[in-house]
Amino acid sequence: MRVGDRWMRSIWADDDGWTVRIIDQTTLPDRLIIASLTSRNEVEEAIRSMRVRGAPLIGITAAFGLALSLRLDPSDAGIAVARAALIATRPTAVNLRWALDRVVRAVAEHPPRERAAVAQGLARTMVEEDVAACQRIGEEGLVLLRGLAAGRDRPLQVLTHCNAGWLATVDWGTALAPLYRAHDAGLPVHVWVDETRPRNQGLLTAWELGQHGVPHTVIVDNAGGLLMRTRRVDVVIVGTDRVARNGDVANKIGTYLKALAAFDNGIPFYVAAPASSIDWSAPDGEAIPIEERSPAELGHRAELPVANPAFDVTPARLVTGLITERGTTESTAAGLARLFPERQ
Amino acid sequence: MRVGDRWMRSIWADDDGWTVRIIDQTTLPDRLIIASLTSRNEVEEAIRSMRVRGAPLIGITAAFGLALSLRLDPSDAGIAVARAALIATRPTAVNLRWALDRVVRAVAEHPPRERAAVAQGLARTMVEEDVAACQRIGEEGLVLLRGLAAGRDRPLQVLTHCNAGWLATVDWGTALAPLYRAHDAGLPVHVWVDETRPRNQGLLTAWELGQHGVPHTVIVDNAGGLLMRTRRVDVVIVGTDRVARNGDVANKIGTYLKALAAFDNGIPFYVAAPASSIDWSAPDGEAIPIEERSPAELGHRAELPVANPAFDVTPARLVTGLITERGTTESTAAGLARLFPERQ
Repeated sequence: MRVGDRWMRSIWADDDGWTVRIIDQTTLPDRLIIASLTSRNEVEEAIRSMRVRGAPLIGITAAFGLALSLRLDPSDAGIAVARAALIATRPTAVNLRWALDRVVRAVAEHPPRERAAVAQGLARTMVEEDVAACQRIGEEGLVLLRGLAAGRDRPLQVLTHCNAGWLATVDWGTALAPLYRAHDAGLPVHVWVDETRPRNQGLLTAWELGQHGVPHTVIVDNAGGLLMRTRRVDVVIVGTDRVARNGDVANKIGTYLKALAAFDNGIPFYVAAPASSIDWSAPDGEAIPIEERSPAELGHRAELPVANPAFDVTPARLVTGLITERGTTESTAAGLARLFPERQ
Repeated sequence: MRVGDRWMRSIWADDDGWTVRIIDQTTLPDRLIIASLTSRNEVEEAIRSMRVRGAPLIGITAAFGLALSLRLDPSDAGIAVARAALIATRPTAVNLRWALDRVVRAVAEHPPRERAAVAQGLARTMVEEDVAACQRIGEEGLVLLRGLAAGRDRPLQVLTHCNAGWLATVDWGTALAPLYRAHDAGLPVHVWVDETRPRNQGLLTAWELGQHGVPHTVIVDNAGGLLMRTRRVDVVIVGTDRVARNGDVANKIGTYLKALAAFDNGIPFYVAAPASSIDWSAPDGEAIPIEERSPAELGHRAELPVANPAFDVTPARLVTGLITERGTTESTAAGLARLFPERQ
């Protein structure tokens, strides 16, 4: 995606594949710093501290982390240790487990001396697959946006929460991909960007949208309900960290509140969900672990008693549809089964 | 209320009545600074910049401001100018209009030379009335809390948004008055305190509760939905800036989202509303003006496009009950009429 005059991705590997470059998202939007990860420890730190964040991106970063780890210890025991350590970095996004298990399965068929290279090759493949999936989500979402925009004499008003843009993936993003497509296709959109306390990922979204030229306005997380009640929002689109089999959606804390407001006002609420975000082993949202993060993230005085849950679950009944790389569907077990028959 | 070893109010007048002392709420909770207001201009600035805030308190502060103004110009024209200027400081809280109109009516019966003293005397009376109303709300709310706590083997879990404590009134508060009463009566409560972006009035609430020894935990505004869905909240209590005749409730931006989550989870949602907050001329929430405040309040970079609406409206259907100094009632036209028959 566009950063000034450059086109960038959020992650890439050097030619030999053993230095992984990331955009350090903890310094954005103030400074654009490229960080290098050359060991599993560095990958773990980058995920835990949210230098890389966003469910799809942390999955891919972890895959590279596993490859780096296998370079030092490609034994079965080494695989198990590395997998467990990388999964433990963030508990809620299922993409982490999805990506690591895919690599583990692939390398298991190879002798130890080949495993690191196999893992690295697969991580590179997953990078390209992620880009393709986000592009497809963008196309699917564009169809929806065109339908919603029809007959309106003003830009389509979209509200999003957190950052599900290209910084949260490799390129394009999930929730933001349809907006980039719409903007590029000449369909006027304006995006209400939830600040997304405590970490202000909304500022990442605003930065992305600004670099691409998409009109947007930042609001506090409290404001979306008023905007919806006063008809200043036409559609809500968010990403997800994990979709359960029944269509319940875990996403950044506060998402559920926006889904309630959308439902209360008859406004469609879409979740952009690549297949890597679907947890076929979770029957419903109650099976999804919710990460508690450090009270320090709120940035108040140390002695203040603080709780800081990082995600919530939006029940399927509040979700108008899931936008996946295979198409758009209602957020139900049946809807997911139709798009992913091989998982039934 | 308690501040360390002292007992304080949020506003008081010096013996001669012409210097009004306030706690400067813009420096709390870091520093407790008492500011002096000796002119209408200073009162206007204090209200506009939120050195004093909270619907009941700004009404009373404005009444003192009108008295100070009449000291310089007690003419009919002077009254009209002062009233208009003070009302314009904050558009949403109806207490401002309520207090000023009460003073205007009272002084109109007197010759100009007596008006300043009459206004000041009435402002002092309103201070005591506000304390009494908040005490009554505390008693009414305590009955509700006792009912909700019955049979539980853990502290009653209460969520509140913004600050409707003693800092928002003269003493005791509206939403927090029942919690202080419960705590003092030995009924264990724990309060989830919404941070309340952009201005973090939740830190005022946490400070108040901490001074009084009431257990509490600060959370981001995004977190309440999760806490309610996971049964960690037993009741929500908030204050209000204006209640319409039909029971619609304007309050700090984000209140509506919490009301939706409470409703979705079968959790009672109470609004503590002194009579001074009821706007009998507003048929419903659509008649309530919503203040837009400066984008700078969000504290991000100047060039970021920002919208900053300060209040929202919670429809009456989401409100379990209004707690007033005359008793608790359903939030409907009929319920309000029963408590305030003289206004019908």
